[in-house]
Amino acid sequence: MYWSSLFNVRMKRLNPSVIQEMMTLISKPGCISFTAGEPSMDLHPLEKIRSAFDETLFNDPEVLAYSEPSGDPGLRAWISSWLEKNQYAASNPGMERIFLTNGSQAGLNFISLMFLKEGDKILVEDPSYTEAILSFGKEGVEFLPVPLKEEGPDLQVMEDFLKKNRVSFFYSIPTFQNPSGRSISKERKREILKLAERYDFLIVEDDPYRELWFDSPPPATFLSLSRDDERVIYLGSFSKIIAPGLRCGYMVLPLSVMKKAAELRVALEINLPAIIHKTVLKVVDDPLFSLHLDNIRSTYRLRRDSMVKNVNELLTPLGFSFSPPQGGFFIWGSMKGLNGLEFSRYAAINEKIGVIPGEGFFVGAGGENYLRFSFAQVLEDQSREGVIRLSRALKNFVRTE
Amino acid sequence: MYWSSLFNVRMKRLNPSVIQEMMTLISKPGCISFTAGEPSMDLHPLEKIRSAFDETLFNDPEVLAYSEPSGDPGLRAWISSWLEKNQYAASNPGMERIFLTNGSQAGLNFISLMFLKEGDKILVEDPSYTEAILSFGKEGVEFLPVPLKEEGPDLQVMEDFLKKNRVSFFYSIPTFQNPSGRSISKERKREILKLAERYDFLIVEDDPYRELWFDSPPPATFLSLSRDDERVIYLGSFSKIIAPGLRCGYMVLPLSVMKKAAELRVALEINLPAIIHKTVLKVVDDPLFSLHLDNIRSTYRLRRDSMVKNVNELLTPLGFSFSPPQGGFFIWGSMKGLNGLEFSRYAAINEKIGVIPGEGFFVGAGGENYLRFSFAQVLEDQSREGVIRLSRALKNFVRTE
Repeated sequence: MYWSSLFNVRMKRLNPSVIQEMMTLISKPGCISFTAGEPSMDLHPLEKIRSAFDETLFNDPEVLAYSEPSGDPGLRAWISSWLEKNQYAASNPGMERIFLTNGSQAGLNFISLMFLKEGDKILVEDPSYTEAILSFGKEGVEFLPVPLKEEGPDLQVMEDFLKKNRVSFFYSIPTFQNPSGRSISKERKREILKLAERYDFLIVEDDPYRELWFDSPPPATFLSLSRDDERVIYLGSFSKIIAPGLRCGYMVLPLSVMKKAAELRVALEINLPAIIHKTVLKVVDDPLFSLHLDNIRSTYRLRRDSMVKNVNELLTPLGFSFSPPQGGFFIWGSMKGLNGLEFSRYAAINEKIGVIPGEGFFVGAGGENYLRFSFAQVLEDQSREGVIRLSRALKNFVRTE
Repeated sequence: MYWSSLFNVRMKRLNPSVIQEMMTLISKPGCISFTAGEPSMDLHPLEKIRSAFDETLFNDPEVLAYSEPSGDPGLRAWISSWLEKNQYAASNPGMERIFLTNGSQAGLNFISLMFLKEGDKILVEDPSYTEAILSFGKEGVEFLPVPLKEEGPDLQVMEDFLKKNRVSFFYSIPTFQNPSGRSISKERKREILKLAERYDFLIVEDDPYRELWFDSPPPATFLSLSRDDERVIYLGSFSKIIAPGLRCGYMVLPLSVMKKAAELRVALEINLPAIIHKTVLKVVDDPLFSLHLDNIRSTYRLRRDSMVKNVNELLTPLGFSFSPPQGGFFIWGSMKGLNGLEFSRYAAINEKIGVIPGEGFFVGAGGENYLRFSFAQVLEDQSREGVIRLSRALKNFVRTE
């Protein structure tokens, strides 16, 4: 017997990601990458993080001991107030409902492990975030894909699904979505909440890009619009606004779920490193934190502007079509007849420019024609040069097909 | 619909732990606790950890970005050499086989999620570590309990099980076991490996206490004694020798499992905080680390000596029977006719002394008469006073029963 012969069905459902493949292809010298859905290194508040670690170890050496399974109470209390102050929630949910996670992905996995079983049905936006699909999918669920339009999910398709299926929850990234960059309007959210009440399903609101708005603040959250504390699980993250390497995210859970979530935490990993939580608390609880947020917003805005201008100038004439995003990290567009996967490989190898093909983000059919460009890490001259390479690749790829 | 109505069968298998209950009962002022299986705060190399965090952020700010799913390559390479140098493994397994985890518990959970399914059968030592049982048990497995004797697991019972059952693996804590403090002799390990070949089962070797030997180094590992790289998954941890709050452990996996484990890591949590890994590397790669190990060994040795002396003097005459441990954190003993669970509650409430009842560590029947005392955090005068309280509690409890 070998260990690999013991793999259970869950492991057979896992797959290596296309994003990983593209990132490897593009890791050679001279390459320009629009691949990574990842904050720009130069925007991490490095010195503040450094002093926060140091002060934490000096003032709170007990972070080196085991700690509370749900996460540091201080950070949980701060998050709870922040949610109210910034109208993520209609009122302060209380730290008793805040559960810290190793990034939002770990929150999605807690949801998978707590609630899902083989054959369960989940409504998802189509396209949606690949690694969320992976986390739910490994438990053997069936996905019901709801096409995502400019205003939000297609309500008609959603209701058609609901008439024929009992669904566990609707998974949504409502703000500056990965990959599409779209946000769901407040009105559309209200309609979805009405459907949720009528057909009695729940909502998982995954909202890591919320603070990264460039023009005006994004529409209200499902969490704040819901009249029912049990209707929505909200997931937030410090990955995009501080640094992803700290692996710090959170969930707002219904009170009735918190105790079991803590029991599951013990079975999974006892607790998370409290030193990370206390350090994040020192970073966010600093009066300069709001200036930091302003700074990253204006930097990403410039990068968006630059890439939008270049794409408009050089790719739109070739038939590439997209809507400029109002926040987040991504330009998402399509070109009729394009095989995005083949093109992405071709562009990486022949023009040393990395983009992500859209196909992997779709649960339903379609998506072959789509591409995702991330501008988060791309400086102005790289943006220009990268889009020039893309236009050359597009011309040559279409020609060689 | 409410979220709690969606809990899957896994969540119904989880239970709050008796250890948590006892630790809460004993958290009041004036209490003395022998409960926590946790290193002593004063033995964490705090200043070294502090400077290591600071240097890491100064020299390697890229720890703030996303990082490799399997964990930091530098620490994995160090662990791989250390395993060879200290004869944990017969030869250097190579960093390609080292997978970092959020403490050993997370390693156990990876094993659960990768390999287990409902109805699988697992051989376990009886007694064994409660949270491992919890992690495997949540996946719906059946446990086959093998009584743990002074020399190791009862081979006759093990073979009887093997004749009648196909088992996935044998879960063992072979060195200074939690809770029993026992170690499996090299000879007994060879016999178990022979059974493993004959009946074709695998071994999960969970070995966090290995470096905490007081008298002489512990017997060789299953990993080093096995002739087959696929036979043993070895789990190690820095929790007991640096600090548990850093949440840093590792697994030595068969090469054929590494790729899938990394895919599962992405689905579960993308990656772990690289800053922790690079910091741990700086701590262990310091020439003073071996002195630190000598220091914690001699401190825990003194604490063991002190508690053993007190228990011999005050509890043995009352009928409490135990064998002094050769390493680790625990004294494990029993008293005929004692209800350990009732006694532990009684002692905590009436005498303000906390111990852990043995029952929760047993999968099979029995264990009611057992108690676990941890000496890891107990200074000399507390040890005396705590054992005095225990003797008083034992006398009064037996009288009031």
